[in-house]
Amino acid sequence: MLDTVMIWIDKNSRRWLQDVQQWLSIPSISTDPNHVADMASAAQWAQHYLRSAGLHAQIIETPRHPCVWATTPPEMCPRGASHVVIYGHYDVQPPDPLEAWVSPPFSPTIRGGQIVARGASDDKGQTFCHLAALLAWREVAQEFPLRISVLLEGEEEIGSPNLRPVIEQLKPLLSDAAALIISDSSQFAPGIPAITSGLRGMVYAQLTLTGPSHDLHSGIYGGAVANPATALCQILGKLHDATGRVTIPGFYDDVDAVDAPTRADWAKLPFSPEAMARDIGVKQLNGEHGYTTLERRWCRPTLDVNGLTAGFQGNGAKTIIPGSAGAKVSMRLVPRQDPEKIAAALEPFLQSLLPDGIEMQLEILSAWPAVLTATDSPAISAAMRAIRTGLGNDPVIVREGGSIPVVNWFRQILGLETVLLGFGLPDDNLHAPNEKLDLDCFYGGIRTSAALLDELARQFS
Amino acid sequence: MLDTVMIWIDKNSRRWLQDVQQWLSIPSISTDPNHVADMASAAQWAQHYLRSAGLHAQIIETPRHPCVWATTPPEMCPRGASHVVIYGHYDVQPPDPLEAWVSPPFSPTIRGGQIVARGASDDKGQTFCHLAALLAWREVAQEFPLRISVLLEGEEEIGSPNLRPVIEQLKPLLSDAAALIISDSSQFAPGIPAITSGLRGMVYAQLTLTGPSHDLHSGIYGGAVANPATALCQILGKLHDATGRVTIPGFYDDVDAVDAPTRADWAKLPFSPEAMARDIGVKQLNGEHGYTTLERRWCRPTLDVNGLTAGFQGNGAKTIIPGSAGAKVSMRLVPRQDPEKIAAALEPFLQSLLPDGIEMQLEILSAWPAVLTATDSPAISAAMRAIRTGLGNDPVIVREGGSIPVVNWFRQILGLETVLLGFGLPDDNLHAPNEKLDLDCFYGGIRTSAALLDELARQFS
Repeated sequence: MLDTVMIWIDKNSRRWLQDVQQWLSIPSISTDPNHVADMASAAQWAQHYLRSAGLHAQIIETPRHPCVWATTPPEMCPRGASHVVIYGHYDVQPPDPLEAWVSPPFSPTIRGGQIVARGASDDKGQTFCHLAALLAWREVAQEFPLRISVLLEGEEEIGSPNLRPVIEQLKPLLSDAAALIISDSSQFAPGIPAITSGLRGMVYAQLTLTGPSHDLHSGIYGGAVANPATALCQILGKLHDATGRVTIPGFYDDVDAVDAPTRADWAKLPFSPEAMARDIGVKQLNGEHGYTTLERRWCRPTLDVNGLTAGFQGNGAKTIIPGSAGAKVSMRLVPRQDPEKIAAALEPFLQSLLPDGIEMQLEILSAWPAVLTATDSPAISAAMRAIRTGLGNDPVIVREGGSIPVVNWFRQILGLETVLLGFGLPDDNLHAPNEKLDLDCFYGGIRTSAALLDELARQFS
Repeated sequence: MLDTVMIWIDKNSRRWLQDVQQWLSIPSISTDPNHVADMASAAQWAQHYLRSAGLHAQIIETPRHPCVWATTPPEMCPRGASHVVIYGHYDVQPPDPLEAWVSPPFSPTIRGGQIVARGASDDKGQTFCHLAALLAWREVAQEFPLRISVLLEGEEEIGSPNLRPVIEQLKPLLSDAAALIISDSSQFAPGIPAITSGLRGMVYAQLTLTGPSHDLHSGIYGGAVANPATALCQILGKLHDATGRVTIPGFYDDVDAVDAPTRADWAKLPFSPEAMARDIGVKQLNGEHGYTTLERRWCRPTLDVNGLTAGFQGNGAKTIIPGSAGAKVSMRLVPRQDPEKIAAALEPFLQSLLPDGIEMQLEILSAWPAVLTATDSPAISAAMRAIRTGLGNDPVIVREGGSIPVVNWFRQILGLETVLLGFGLPDDNLHAPNEKLDLDCFYGGIRTSAALLDELARQFS
């Protein structure tokens, strides 16, 4: 039956393009209050599309932007079929700077074998591949190979502030799910599809140092009182050693070395640190000694200062000893590092570095663990076969340096493992002007999704 | 003749109070555009007062607030008499927070033996002491003991942006001056008058570090690229050693140890570090090891971070590696340290601390040397005798941690030495609500100024 579905998908290539362009033309910018109505339209568009694919689809309101929730009707699924969940997001980043776009961001344009539009890759375009595959199964087979739930979010680009309660609310309907499918990442390179098996975790902290009860004249008092801004630099300057390792006691206790075969696999990937340096505008990359750039991003924990604020920040000179100084500090964690343990180790270490006359407040703003999927799990095996069928090449197993909170929530609330397979490419200009999705990736994505449903049904049967 | 002048001053105590209250009632807030007319009124008041004291007085306009310039007429000075300059400022700090004042800041009130008003001490009240002394000499003696020029500024509280050109313009009229008198400091404590013999110099720098050409996602790139905010902390954190000394090479090369008798004199002053800590709201003072609090403020050079800015500074979390990070850094210098040399040593030292992948821009915003007056100079000797006559006690010789740019300009442009003698007290609430000047200090200040003119005339004759 999959063969027939695939033929039908290929025959309808013009239709997929028309459909996705419709969705992409709705400016669903979640962060912009002027686009609240567009957000609702984009959610309704997805609801209608899922209904046309035969699913029961509804809008779930949240305090800000709605979710779309859809399930395959029992009568259209094999008796006793397994259950998988597909997550995607229909909101997009703001298109600024508008003048840098070659064609308007919400007038999707086909140019040089690419769909150019805001959201073409992140994430409407990739999410659409799953919607199209569902429609194809319904049209060709009149039924689905297994039970499928779809959850589309409208707040991913603003940090998913209202998603967790929605997942909790849906928990009874999801308790028997076998896997979560997310296509919000990318292939490793053209012709090299990828499955993302690991995400880093995070501890994000707000640090405030206070000294004098008010700003002091730096002439009258300078040298006789600890300066919170100077102290902040001294403390944060001690959080790395000369080899780039984080100095918090116990920080590396639970960090596993990545095995030699995996490191060898990564070393073989066609990745150019020089090209990355050029892309981000630095003369030279830099990081923990003894690791390659991909290792530093994928399997090593980090500590970064995300923001600093103290004293006088305007033009010119003001001679003060600031009364306080603040910093945002975040750590990216790797598998087995416990975010609670790391957060708990941070405070006493910072305290031990405080000079006399300075007080400290530390607030942990987020703490979630890294994610590492077994690369030989049934869902991953199914995804690998589906990618081979849909995109024509074997995928590589990679990791990602960032964190995707929804993956943790599905794991925490439902114990669900995620399969992260992306159809786009690293140069899709996510969050930047002229975002695009190659047509090869787009059609390959629909084919991969159709094959994936079939493979998962077999795997879990 | 001085005796007669002193008697006349004492007899007219009610008059002085009425006169100074008039001047204090004009809200001459230089920083507030709503008070431009009041600034002009306060300048005119001084001009008229100086005219009533027999001087030729005029307004010198500047791009913002005017100066008042006055000179004793040749026919009212002894032939071939020496020439001294008195500097003061008629602008005041804003009175906020208004609700903290017991009486309105520009309704001068006599309460508990004190004049309470904005500007009572800083600097209208202290400057008025000199104007009153001039009037007394004129009334009693019909002439002045020596030639006197008076320069009053209206922009001291906003950094004297237009004063230097005025001094340069007046240079031909000031080239034969023997000393500059400034009363904009304070006595050391009640009953302990002070002459300030030293001011620290300053180098103020703006440091900017740049890394990636734009903010990066700290998940995707974290650990693989040098972070400008982290680097800023690492660099600034290395500018002091564990004993609180500044680590810039050569920083202490030209720093003279203060001689043992001077240190012993300072140690005998009734100064309480605990009281100072309480006043500024810290549990504990802190500074360079091996020095007392007064030594740290008066004779040791320092480095302070005056401001920090980088990346995300709002509420909550944003996971970025900032593209740049900036700091304001200032050093207070002591005598013989060359600000140009220190500024020149800073740049290569900071460069040597830069991690790969980070670029640096350094801008020196100001650089002026410390001031140290010989404590046995003729003008200081005259001032010590005048203080004994006018305030009834011998003064102590102290220093001040801050810098007064006008002192450097008079030295640079005219080679003129300054005598800093203040009539107020350290608890006069300068720049704070309920600023005051004790009546004892006020009358003693007028007497001291009258005596000083006599002593300077003898000293330089």
